[in-house]
Amino acid sequence: MHKDIAYHEYANEAIAHLANGGIFLTVKDPDQDRANIMTIGWGTIGYIWRKPILMVMVRYSRHTYGLLEKAGEFTVSIPLHQDRTNELMICGRQSGRDIDKFKECGFTPEKGRAIDTPIIKECPLHFECRVVYQQAMEPGQLSKELRTNCYQTPDYHVLYFGEILASYLRK
Amino acid sequence: MHKDIAYHEYANEAIAHLANGGIFLTVKDPDQDRANIMTIGWGTIGYIWRKPILMVMVRYSRHTYGLLEKAGEFTVSIPLHQDRTNELMICGRQSGRDIDKFKECGFTPEKGRAIDTPIIKECPLHFECRVVYQQAMEPGQLSKELRTNCYQTPDYHVLYFGEILASYLRK
Repeated sequence: MHKDIAYHEYANEAIAHLANGGIFLTVKDPDQDRANIMTIGWGTIGYIWRKPILMVMVRYSRHTYGLLEKAGEFTVSIPLHQDRTNELMICGRQSGRDIDKFKECGFTPEKGRAIDTPIIKECPLHFECRVVYQQAMEPGQLSKELRTNCYQTPDYHVLYFGEILASYLRK
Repeated sequence: MHKDIAYHEYANEAIAHLANGGIFLTVKDPDQDRANIMTIGWGTIGYIWRKPILMVMVRYSRHTYGLLEKAGEFTVSIPLHQDRTNELMICGRQSGRDIDKFKECGFTPEKGRAIDTPIIKECPLHFECRVVYQQAMEPGQLSKELRTNCYQTPDYHVLYFGEILASYLRK
């Protein structure tokens, strides 16, 4: 069962999960007729261009980078009040080039309501987003401290700003 | 009196105010020994580079743009549960080049706790931020619909990512 929520209603919880353990970013992979999951720990939520926006970041080296460049849309599933340590680790450390992470995690892909990308059925909180703006990081613009801490190699992030087209709880 | 809060504790409310009426962005103006306030309606909050981040956007044409380029820090004050329609209009429509908006609004600048930029004493919710990353928009990367809706002229935004150094309620 779905319960629609305002896009910002669970912003506190979404940010808290992002910062503590991570959340799931799902992007479809048409070549393999499946979708791939990646754990993300960085992102922001808010309102830009008169649209509700969820911003996620993906490094060039990630399988998700190539997928997202083609797909132009993504879903975010958040394990609200669930212990998903193991699944978050699988989706953070392994690559969708090698394994099917839905299978590996025992997760079920469920059809998105607004877009053609599945959500993770087992998670309680979901966002469906279409990329409306994206921008590769300019390394020289980042503070030296953060550049040193977060980028040992030139594997920088691309910022993807997704318009939130659906946000809901799944029970 | 101050009450410290977790940076994301009032994310829902901050985003709701941003999208409905706006919030106050304050940047110091050393040349005039005062600070300037601007109303903003777009921005995001979250966690990036292992730091709590508040992202605000300022158009090139704004007085605040020049100030922020020099200051590298800003505060955000949010009129939680207050009707500040008039002050939001003053700070949104008038320019700090012409008037002192603290005076015009009857607002009191109060010393920041973590940075050298004042907050608006009369508001209940505050964030103090130091810019750790900034990036000018790449217009060609924005969806055509949003480019048409939001940018009639080439007066694009610069995105300022501020590390949240203090977040608190003021009673």
